[in-house]
Formats: sequence, C-alpha cells, structure tokens
Amino acid sequence: MLKLFYAVGSCALASHIALEEAGAEYQAVRLDFAAADQRKPEYLKVNPKGRVPALITDSGILTETPAILAYVAQVFPKAGLAPLTDPFAFARVQAFNSYLCSTAHVNHAHFTRGSRWADEAASLEDMKRKVPKNVGDSFALMESEMVEGPWVMGNAYTICDPYLFTVAGWLPRDSVDIARFPKIHDHHTRMAERPAVKKVLAAWS
Amino acid sequence: MLKLFYAVGSCALASHIALEEAGAEYQAVRLDFAAADQRKPEYLKVNPKGRVPALITDSGILTETPAILAYVAQVFPKAGLAPLTDPFAFARVQAFNSYLCSTAHVNHAHFTRGSRWADEAASLEDMKRKVPKNVGDSFALMESEMVEGPWVMGNAYTICDPYLFTVAGWLPRDSVDIARFPKIHDHHTRMAERPAVKKVLAAWS
Repeated sequence: MLKLFYAVGSCALASHIALEEAGAEYQAVRLDFAAADQRKPEYLKVNPKGRVPALITDSGILTETPAILAYVAQVFPKAGLAPLTDPFAFARVQAFNSYLCSTAHVNHAHFTRGSRWADEAASLEDMKRKVPKNVGDSFALMESEMVEGPWVMGNAYTICDPYLFTVAGWLPRDSVDIARFPKIHDHHTRMAERPAVKKVLAAWS
Repeated sequence: MLKLFYAVGSCALASHIALEEAGAEYQAVRLDFAAADQRKPEYLKVNPKGRVPALITDSGILTETPAILAYVAQVFPKAGLAPLTDPFAFARVQAFNSYLCSTAHVNHAHFTRGSRWADEAASLEDMKRKVPKNVGDSFALMESEMVEGPWVMGNAYTICDPYLFTVAGWLPRDSVDIARFPKIHDHHTRMAERPAVKKVLAAWS
C-alpha cells in the first residue's frame, strides 16, 4: 500500500489531496517538524533530503511534489488527473507544477527558511520584507498568464489544482491578499468545497 | 518546427542538448541577457516570465526545463530519453529533475541572482558566501543518494543527464570542486564527449 509522509503546513498537502482524488488506498504518516522528525535517522532512511513529501510505493520511494503528482495521475488513470496521452497538454501541467516548486514555493520559503541561503539576522529580515512582493508577483503572473479557470488547465481538474490550492493557502502568512487574484481566489473557494480536500484538511487538523 | 530560446550560461543548455539527442528538427534562438533581451516586449510575448528556456511547438509554447525535457522525451520516443511506460521509473526521472530545478539551481542562483530575494548589498554578499556550501551540499546528496552511474538513472541515458551536466557546469563559478563527487565528475567528462553535447556547446561558443 502507498504510504505518504507529510507535515502539517507543508507542500505535501498537494500529494495528499491527489491521492484522495485518485481514490487510492494509502496510509498517511504525519511528521512533526517542531520535533524535527524529518531529521531523525529513521526518516532520513526514507528521504535523505529530510523533507516532505515522500511516497513509499511497491516499487520504491518517491520524493518531490511534481514527480509524486504525475505518478499518482499515471497509476490511477481512471481518475483523469492529467492529460496523459497528449504530450503537449501534459507538459503544460508539468510546467505549471514546475513553476510552483521552483519559483512560487521558493519565494514563499524565504520567509521562514531564509537561513537556508544566508546566515546574518539582517539578511533574513531583508528576505522576509521582500516575500510579500515576490509571492504577490508570482501569483499575479499565474493569474494573468497561467490559470485558465475554472481549474488551472481550464475545464479539466488536474494535478495542478491541489498544488495551486496548497501554495495559495500560504498567502495569508505571506501577507498577500488572495482577493487580488480573482481566478485564483475563486479556485481556492471551490477547491475547499471538494470532498477530497475536506477529508484531507480534516485529517491534518 | 520547434524553436528553442536560450541564453549562453543558462539552464536552457539541458533542453538544447535533449533536442539534439532526440534528433529533433529545431531552430535555436539566442537571447543576449547582457542586453536584457529576455525583458523585451517581443520576448515577453513568448515567455511572460522573462526567462529561458522557452520552446515554441506546433501546439503552443512551453517553459520550465523539467517540462520541456519530458516533452522532448515523449514526442521523440525512439530516442529512448525516458522510461515512458514505467510510471515509477518515469517519476524517479522527474524527481531528479525537480530537485535540480527547485533546489540545486536555486542554491546556485543565490550567487548572481540574490536580488530576486533581498535588497541590501550586505544580504547579497551574505547569500554569495553561502553558495559554495549550499551547492556543495546539493551535489553531495546527488552523488550519494541519487546518481547511480554511469548515467544518472543507471545504464540508460535519460533527460536527467543533460540537466545534471548543465547544473554541474556551474560548479567552478560556485567555487565547488567537481572532483569531490567522483560519479558526477565522471559523468561530466563522459557527457562532454557526446556528439550532441559537443555540437550544442560549439553553437553556444
């Protein structure tokens, strides 16, 4: 059975929702970042990066949100979570998720994880001050150029949707008002109403 | 015909090599970052992010290295650049490329692109000082946990290989000695001998 390792507040939410939407049988295992569970030897055997998500499958262990999301879409094709037979459409899905992981998530991470990239307290404060602008700019670009609506890729719900929902869920912490982005705001509201999302959020609470 | 936009020194090298390895018919268009070509209105119509790579296809425009690489593997299946019929193996390829784009490339970017995330000169210097350690740590993790050898995924050459070659090519600038990572060092040497790589590097020179 699939086993997903997650931590509350992390981007593992996207993979968790995708598993639920796919109708997968899986076990979700919560790590406590406050207790540094992700740095404990037993977890580092699962994911040497010391991060979440990690997904244990019968074939081996997978990490990285975009990879896990595409895997879930491919092994549960009936759920229709990605345009698997159209390379261009699939690449657009991947491009969106790649932007979330390499740009939007990274912009967000400079608020609490600035110590990954600098050491001085003044530098970390400088980074924090820039987070609202950077995160806001990322979302403005997604709103104007990437999110078609009603779902990210248009009429079809895909693996982009739980990932956008996850990263958009960090906007209040980043002091960015989601109402600036009407399509993304609407998306967030409709995502929160989906049974799969409600179930996962209840498990995380 | 496919049209790839690139800039010398950028991560577009991975997509360029992949197109060449795939035997694709394509046109490569060079942007001059020193002249801020990527911020000019005509290019922002191609890629509103103002970044490279961007790949124009008959179906539309793609961005983001991991998405372009997987697209090239899918539309040129005979080139065998990814394990397309094995979702777990394909996800491992994607996980590796996702790590490169969201962690290794981001660590590198804090050397010259620190102004994306902070404003003060002292913060940018602080970030620069940390780049050798962060980039070195990323490569140490890839060496010990991810790169199988002789190619990233083992015996099969995949879309992970030009991407690793690209990011590893930045190690001298990041003051990290590639010889610390024997598998990656060997990989880099063998990559440089491939006809496709030689051809692309000649075009970039």
